[in-house]
Amino acid sequence: MQLGLVGLGKMGFNMRERLREGGHEVIGYDPRPEVSDVPTLAALADALPTPRVVWVMVPSGSITRETIVSLADELSAGDLVIDGGNSRYTEDAPHAKLLGDKGITYIDAGVSGGIWGLKEGYGLMVGGADADVERAMPIFDTLRPPGPREDGFVHAGPVGAGHFAKMVHNGVEYALMTAYAEGYEMLAAEDLVEDPQAVYQAWTNGTVVRSWLQQLLAKALKEDPGFAKISGYTEDSGEGRWTVEEAIRLRVPVPSIAAALFARFLSRQDESPTMKAVAALRNQFGGHAVKRISESG
Amino acid sequence: MQLGLVGLGKMGFNMRERLREGGHEVIGYDPRPEVSDVPTLAALADALPTPRVVWVMVPSGSITRETIVSLADELSAGDLVIDGGNSRYTEDAPHAKLLGDKGITYIDAGVSGGIWGLKEGYGLMVGGADADVERAMPIFDTLRPPGPREDGFVHAGPVGAGHFAKMVHNGVEYALMTAYAEGYEMLAAEDLVEDPQAVYQAWTNGTVVRSWLQQLLAKALKEDPGFAKISGYTEDSGEGRWTVEEAIRLRVPVPSIAAALFARFLSRQDESPTMKAVAALRNQFGGHAVKRISESG
Amino acid sequence: MQLGLVGLGKMGFNMRERLREGGHEVIGYDPRPEVSDVPTLAALADALPTPRVVWVMVPSGSITRETIVSLADELSAGDLVIDGGNSRYTEDAPHAKLLGDKGITYIDAGVSGGIWGLKEGYGLMVGGADADVERAMPIFDTLRPPGPREDGFVHAGPVGAGHFAKMVHNGVEYALMTAYAEGYEMLAAEDLVEDPQAVYQAWTNGTVVRSWLQQLLAKALKEDPGFAKISGYTEDSGEGRWTVEEAIRLRVPVPSIAAALFARFLSRQDESPTMKAVAALRNQFGGHAVKRISESG
Amino acid sequence: MQLGLVGLGKMGFNMRERLREGGHEVIGYDPRPEVSDVPTLAALADALPTPRVVWVMVPSGSITRETIVSLADELSAGDLVIDGGNSRYTEDAPHAKLLGDKGITYIDAGVSGGIWGLKEGYGLMVGGADADVERAMPIFDTLRPPGPREDGFVHAGPVGAGHFAKMVHNGVEYALMTAYAEGYEMLAAEDLVEDPQAVYQAWTNGTVVRSWLQQLLAKALKEDPGFAKISGYTEDSGEGRWTVEEAIRLRVPVPSIAAALFARFLSRQDESPTMKAVAALRNQFGGHAVKRISESG
Repeated sequence: MQLGLVGLGKMGFNMRERLREGGHEVIGYDPRPEVSDVPTLAALADALPTPRVVWVMVPSGSITRETIVSLADELSAGDLVIDGGNSRYTEDAPHAKLLGDKGITYIDAGVSGGIWGLKEGYGLMVGGADADVERAMPIFDTLRPPGPREDGFVHAGPVGAGHFAKMVHNGVEYALMTAYAEGYEMLAAEDLVEDPQAVYQAWTNGTVVRSWLQQLLAKALKEDPGFAKISGYTEDSGEGRWTVEEAIRLRVPVPSIAAALFARFLSRQDESPTMKAVAALRNQFGGHAVKRISESG
Repeated sequence: MQLGLVGLGKMGFNMRERLREGGHEVIGYDPRPEVSDVPTLAALADALPTPRVVWVMVPSGSITRETIVSLADELSAGDLVIDGGNSRYTEDAPHAKLLGDKGITYIDAGVSGGIWGLKEGYGLMVGGADADVERAMPIFDTLRPPGPREDGFVHAGPVGAGHFAKMVHNGVEYALMTAYAEGYEMLAAEDLVEDPQAVYQAWTNGTVVRSWLQQLLAKALKEDPGFAKISGYTEDSGEGRWTVEEAIRLRVPVPSIAAALFARFLSRQDESPTMKAVAALRNQFGGHAVKRISESG
Repeated sequence: MQLGLVGLGKMGFNMRERLREGGHEVIGYDPRPEVSDVPTLAALADALPTPRVVWVMVPSGSITRETIVSLADELSAGDLVIDGGNSRYTEDAPHAKLLGDKGITYIDAGVSGGIWGLKEGYGLMVGGADADVERAMPIFDTLRPPGPREDGFVHAGPVGAGHFAKMVHNGVEYALMTAYAEGYEMLAAEDLVEDPQAVYQAWTNGTVVRSWLQQLLAKALKEDPGFAKISGYTEDSGEGRWTVEEAIRLRVPVPSIAAALFARFLSRQDESPTMKAVAALRNQFGGHAVKRISESG
Repeated sequence: MQLGLVGLGKMGFNMRERLREGGHEVIGYDPRPEVSDVPTLAALADALPTPRVVWVMVPSGSITRETIVSLADELSAGDLVIDGGNSRYTEDAPHAKLLGDKGITYIDAGVSGGIWGLKEGYGLMVGGADADVERAMPIFDTLRPPGPREDGFVHAGPVGAGHFAKMVHNGVEYALMTAYAEGYEMLAAEDLVEDPQAVYQAWTNGTVVRSWLQQLLAKALKEDPGFAKISGYTEDSGEGRWTVEEAIRLRVPVPSIAAALFARFLSRQDESPTMKAVAALRNQFGGHAVKRISESG
């Protein structure tokens, strides 16, 4: 089918590729002319047959908001907008309302798979009305991995459900990564274990802990033994934070996900103020030595 | 090759099956005559050609210890014993010494895969001398899953390294399970999500969080929607506890693994003494109501 | 000085008492006529000399909001409103704005001390303009405990700073309670320790862990040995949740406070969905037994 | 009464002082002649009237063990040895046995209070037989703080109970320090709060979180605002590790204490291998940038 695709960054660019390979006519728009098929959002709207379908794949937050506002202007009643970015699910209802006031319908789609999605397909979690999801199904069927539809795609519920499921997916992802990483640190710390990489490689087949992430860790360790070349400084993209916030709202205890999130915060601190306070306290009551910060360095 | 197999429980029974299908001549011994091939350990020793290879697959702890002691009596110099059970790696050196005093060599083998190993193969992590591991390789090659050897088998280091790697494997397994389970609880708690099972099913393909455990959770949810039929009471087998203990010895922070372990402890308490104390404290300073335990129930 | 006090619940009632004992003329208003000094908020405004000072001590959330809105109607330019309740600090700026539009100034005051404050004084953390804080100082000086002002009172910063400091105070309080409670559970679990109460009693003097909360735990254990009479079911009042949410906003790792919060959530669950999922998973891969929920009960 | 005191370090030296001020005749032995009252342990034994009482105050571990062995040689039946150091409680039974074989009795005493104990008294938790504890009571009564005996002293149970209670005390102490420290970091991170020190100072009186440790943190912040002069690098003394290990043995969930312990481990790492692995994983699946370790530095 014909569709518009707004945002041709790391994810959107690959998705245009996969959709075209799947036989769709994709008109992509991006502010960077070197990747864009049309010069403006208005031109994108003009180029699409009505009723239009437009997939938005831009960074979450204000850029998504502005794009939705612009689309409300450029599109017309009967059109369908799909937000495939990592928007917080709480923004979906306002976006749906904003577009709905013009008769434009809305789907939120959580997209997983990273840079591997181009070749292997993207895991999809969508929220919206049945009719809208049905209408966009040819797109979803091309983006998702081959195999039974229910193994790589879910219509999780009404508007918001897709991004909620994607948010939880990412929260779980944080915790999984930390679990594997803690295991790595233990293997690396124990002298008996001659090569942690070999252990991680062996775990890729037949074990209970095997997974795609686990394979990637084995691969990463092969490429950079002992992780000698990289720092532990780790960003967080928002969805881990939102997961813990929503867990608090829902009164769901999530110690693993929270531990993974806090570990990322900590990885970006040169010195932990918490631990400075602990060190200072020990010194106060026990006369325990503290490590002074030397004047020269 | 010919080998003895001591212990024909859930794991050993299946392994005898897989080894025989792989062309090995296995003589199994178990105290339960209905599954045993020979009446006694002595008969097992008699039935095997020397130098013998004997795989021990009995519950960890005192039963493994006693089996090793008995084998030291029944076997002779040049024989090889492989402990495939879930022994703590700290027991491997004493076992190797005990057998070594008689000229018997020793390998520790961590075996992963559970009840699925019979069909899919077992992930193997072994510790021991090169010559011993080489000698037992035909057994390992049959037990491990098909594919490149390094993807389902590792010679992790000297005696102890196999069980150490398996212990860490299980610690990671604890944390992975908790991560997926926290995600499930969040999906189940949010009204927007119509069917958490469908989301877990969709995650099995194309997503970053896909894994064998993740598939099993989708399967479990399909078999028992909402986990209506089971309790959250969860045993722990020892290896989770050892992982945290060894992490402490190695000064490795393992918040995820520890959280998973503590969650199991908690699952077995009817009432948490910790939370009784917290409730009592709140009542003391704030006059907050506490839930009295009714006299009748 | 003369002041109005809106809200005569557990906290407000005691504070009226303490303020009167300190020589202030307090006119209290509460919807319950049996404790109220005046029939309406309007009557409260009429009874106070201008410029008025009104202390609000009602439950946080919509009731505080509505009270502020009503006061904006009843009071006049030059008056001062102090919100002493447990409002989230993010509500202070809107409240200050709402009142400020009428020329009424605003202070937020975090109040600690619980039911003991009447006799011992309340720890106070306030936010607002210097002139406003100065004006209300006679009230603060009566409410706070005797001794140097800086030991029981802080002007923490502009509007919002008082409630922020109080929120953190309560987050820390959650973690402290859990710390003492975990220690209690360990003492109670170890056979060598004949009486955990006696240990907690002994900790009240000379030890590093002594504190007011620690004394209260010793007292609670004396009143109800083994906490036989109460359940571990524990509410949370909002401030623990907000602390973790604000920690996430500030990118501050707070594992202890989060652990304490999650423990409260868990204490209110009959069965943990997370642990049901873990139990189901173990059953899937290991054939481990699960505890079935019996049909009869 | 007359007693010997072996070990005149930071703690023992002060205790000799306090005991002498309390009217006891203390003969101190230490390998450093400048602080020792006698040249050898044998001389100490000779100088004491029989039956002797000897308090051991040396670093836990092998030094305590060796001291007990030496005392078994130098002392005689009817004497009493008190181990006041931070020994792991599991060592008490062997020490008691070793001495008991010679007719010498044994008490384990956990001592809290740090460098402040000299002036304020030490919190004491002891384990041993009733008669032995009774015999040493004059010593305990001098060392403990003034006030009711049960507020600073507990005979917690048989041999081992004292050190067990002290171990739990220190585990709780770890968690308390982390709780206060997390609160500090939050106050320091929030712009609204003008001076975290002032807030901590205000918490010392009237608040629910007030405590001795809390006062010390206010004091530490006054001496080194913003903890500008110290590093967060924090040692751990053994008792925190043991507490988590014993919690595991007792199946007691201790998330707060474990979090505090792991935070210390982390404070001593320049780079977290766990977070390197997480960063590497993110890069693998998402193409997320990693921080390269520059070649020059």
